[in-house]
Amino acid sequence: MNFNIAYTDTASSARAGTITTAHGAIQTPIFMPVGTQGTVKAVHQHELIDDVKAQIILGNTYHLYLRPGTDILHKAGGLHKFIHWDRPILTDSGGYQVYSLKGMRKITEEGVKFQSHVDGSRHFFSPENVMDIQRMIGADIIMAFDECTPYPCDYQYAKKSMHMTHRWLKRCIQQFDRTEPLYGYNQTLSPIVQGSTYPDLREESANFIASQNREMNAIGGLSVGEPHEDMYAMTELVCNILPKDKPRYLMGVGLPENILEGIALGIDMFDCVLPSRNARHGLLYTKDGVINIKNAKWQEDFSPIDSTSDAYTSQIHTKAYLRHLFKVEELLAAQIATIHNLSFFLWLVTESRNKIMEGTFHSWKNEMVGKVSIRR
Amino acid sequence: MNFNIAYTDTASSARAGTITTAHGAIQTPIFMPVGTQGTVKAVHQHELIDDVKAQIILGNTYHLYLRPGTDILHKAGGLHKFIHWDRPILTDSGGYQVYSLKGMRKITEEGVKFQSHVDGSRHFFSPENVMDIQRMIGADIIMAFDECTPYPCDYQYAKKSMHMTHRWLKRCIQQFDRTEPLYGYNQTLSPIVQGSTYPDLREESANFIASQNREMNAIGGLSVGEPHEDMYAMTELVCNILPKDKPRYLMGVGLPENILEGIALGIDMFDCVLPSRNARHGLLYTKDGVINIKNAKWQEDFSPIDSTSDAYTSQIHTKAYLRHLFKVEELLAAQIATIHNLSFFLWLVTESRNKIMEGTFHSWKNEMVGKVSIRR
Repeated sequence: MNFNIAYTDTASSARAGTITTAHGAIQTPIFMPVGTQGTVKAVHQHELIDDVKAQIILGNTYHLYLRPGTDILHKAGGLHKFIHWDRPILTDSGGYQVYSLKGMRKITEEGVKFQSHVDGSRHFFSPENVMDIQRMIGADIIMAFDECTPYPCDYQYAKKSMHMTHRWLKRCIQQFDRTEPLYGYNQTLSPIVQGSTYPDLREESANFIASQNREMNAIGGLSVGEPHEDMYAMTELVCNILPKDKPRYLMGVGLPENILEGIALGIDMFDCVLPSRNARHGLLYTKDGVINIKNAKWQEDFSPIDSTSDAYTSQIHTKAYLRHLFKVEELLAAQIATIHNLSFFLWLVTESRNKIMEGTFHSWKNEMVGKVSIRR
Repeated sequence: MNFNIAYTDTASSARAGTITTAHGAIQTPIFMPVGTQGTVKAVHQHELIDDVKAQIILGNTYHLYLRPGTDILHKAGGLHKFIHWDRPILTDSGGYQVYSLKGMRKITEEGVKFQSHVDGSRHFFSPENVMDIQRMIGADIIMAFDECTPYPCDYQYAKKSMHMTHRWLKRCIQQFDRTEPLYGYNQTLSPIVQGSTYPDLREESANFIASQNREMNAIGGLSVGEPHEDMYAMTELVCNILPKDKPRYLMGVGLPENILEGIALGIDMFDCVLPSRNARHGLLYTKDGVINIKNAKWQEDFSPIDSTSDAYTSQIHTKAYLRHLFKVEELLAAQIATIHNLSFFLWLVTESRNKIMEGTFHSWKNEMVGKVSIRR
C-alpha cells in the first residue's frame, strides 16, 4: 500500500491524497460503504460503481466467518471474486461485533469465546486466527483484533483494555508478518488506537500505535455514544501524534457533520452503516439537511428526489414516487434510498477533497456542517 | 393500437407480430412483468429495460387505486410519469383482486362493494368507474371489468357470471367510448372472455367478445387451478373464435410450459406474478428446468447463475454467491433472482418469436416444454 498526499489545507489539518492498493487507487478523504455480509444492502455492485461512485467497500469478518464461512471464500478465490467486486476491500477484525454479543461472549487474554447469533454455535477469535481469517477473506486492508470499549467506560477498565489491545496488536503483527497473502496480491494490516475518552490513554495508545510503523493507522472506540465534542477532541489529540504521511481511518464515523469535522482534523477514511440503515427507514441525506421521505408533505411533491445528486435514480425519480414505495413497503424503496444516501456520503468526501485542493475547505466545511445537520 | 402479424407458423397456430401503442412497439408473443404497486418488485426501471428487456409491464388497478390513489396519479400526469417508465403499460381492471377479497366484498349487478385490505375502508367498483380509474392511471391498454370465476365453478354460476360479465362489458365500452384519454395519447379497451371450463360457455363468450370488435381480446378465468389440459382446451376453443388479426391475451398465465403451449395455440400476450414471486423464494428458471438456489448442492458452485442468460447479473454472479445472499436474507438476493427469472421469461417469448420466424417453432416448443418443466 502506498499513500501520497497531494494537497494539505492551510486553515485546518485536512489533506487530499491517494491510497494505492493492489485493487486500484482510492482518492482521499474517502467514505467506505459497509457491505457486512458480502453485499452493500440493497445495492447491486455495478450501482456501487456507476451511481454511488464507491472506491472501496468494507466487509465484516465476524459475519463473513459465520456465513458463507472462510472455507467457501477461500475456494471462491477470496471475497473480491465471491462478490464480483474488483475495487479495494477493507475488513474489520470482528472485534466490534463479538463485543456486541452481550452475554454470549467471554474475553480473556487469549482471545474471545463467543456464540454465533445465527445458531448459537461456539467459536473463538484470537489475534492470530483473526489474521488468518482476514488473509482468507482476502481484504486489501486488514484491521487488527482489538477491544472496542463502550461509552461510558470506567477509567481503569479502559486502561486495562487498551493495554490488552496493545498486546493483541503485537500478536496480530507477528501473525500477519509471518503469513503470506493467499491470492497473489499484497494485504496491509492497520493497528487501532483505543483509550476511550481519556486524553492520557489516547495519547499513550496513539504513541504505541505510531511506534509500530505500519502503512496506515486507525482510531477505534469513538462514535459509540460519546458527545461529539469528545469525539473531536480525541480525534484531534490522536491525529497530532499519528504520523502525517500515513492514512488515518476513523472507524464507524458517522454523521455527515462528524465526517466533515473529522476531515478537518486530518482523517482520511470513514465508514458507517448510518446512510444505509437510515435509507431503509426513509431518512434521506441532502445538501440541505435530512428529510423523512415518508412524511405526508412529500405526497404530491413531483420534484426529483434530489436534482443535485450524482445518483441517476435520485434525479429520475420523484419524492412522491419514493414516498409511495415506502408506504406500500416495496423493495425498490430501500434500493433507491440506499443508493441516494451512499451517493450523498461519497459526494460529501469528494467535494471535501475538491475544496481542499481549491484551498477553500475550511469555510465551506463550516457552512456545510450547519446545513447537513438540519432536519427538514 | 395497431397489430401486424409478420409470420404465422404452419405447424401450429403460433404467430409473430408487432403491437404498436402510443408508448412504442411490442414484439409478440410477449410476456409482461407484473408491477402491482407501480414497481416490478425488486427491479429498477432501467434494469427492466437493460437486463430484463421488458417491452410492456402490467399495473394493478385495485392496488394503484388504493395507493397512491388516482388523485396523485392524475396530478403526476399518469402512471408512466409517476414511475418513470415510458414504454407501454397494461392495467388489469381490479376484478381479479376484489374477488380475491373473500368475505370483504359483495357483487351485485351494479358492481362490487369491497373493503380495502390495507385499512378496511369501504369502496365500490363499477364497470363505469373502473374505466374512469384506468383513464386516470393512463395505461395504454385498459382491461374490461369482469368477474373472474374460481375453479371449480358450478355450471349455473359460471353461466350467470359470464352473462353479467357481458352486460358489464357493454357498460365498460359505453363509458370508455364516451370518455377521452387524459394525457394526450390514445388508450385501448380489451374485453375478456369468461365461461370457466365449460366449452359451450366459452364458445358463447368468445363469440360475444369477438362481436364487440375491439382492438384486442383477452381470455380470463384460466390459470386459476384447473388442470393444464382444460386450460389448453379452453384456449384453443376460444382462439378459434377470436379474430386472427387482433392480439390475444391469456391473462395470468403462467408456467413456462403454459406460455409455450399458449403461443402454439395462437396467444400473443401473457402475464404472471410467478417469475417474480418464485424468485423471492429462490426458485430460478433456466433453459434446463427449475432450480432451488437455496439447496446445499449450490454452496460451492462457483459457475455463473446462468451463463446463457441475457441478464448481466446472472452472468457475473455465481450460484454460490446467490445462495449465500438467500441464506443470509439479503435484499440483493431478491434483486438478482427477480432479474434472472424475468429475463428468462422474456427470453422464452423472444426465442419463441425467433423460432416462429424461422419456421422451427413447433418442434423447438415440444423440446422446450420437456426441459423447462424439470426440477433440478
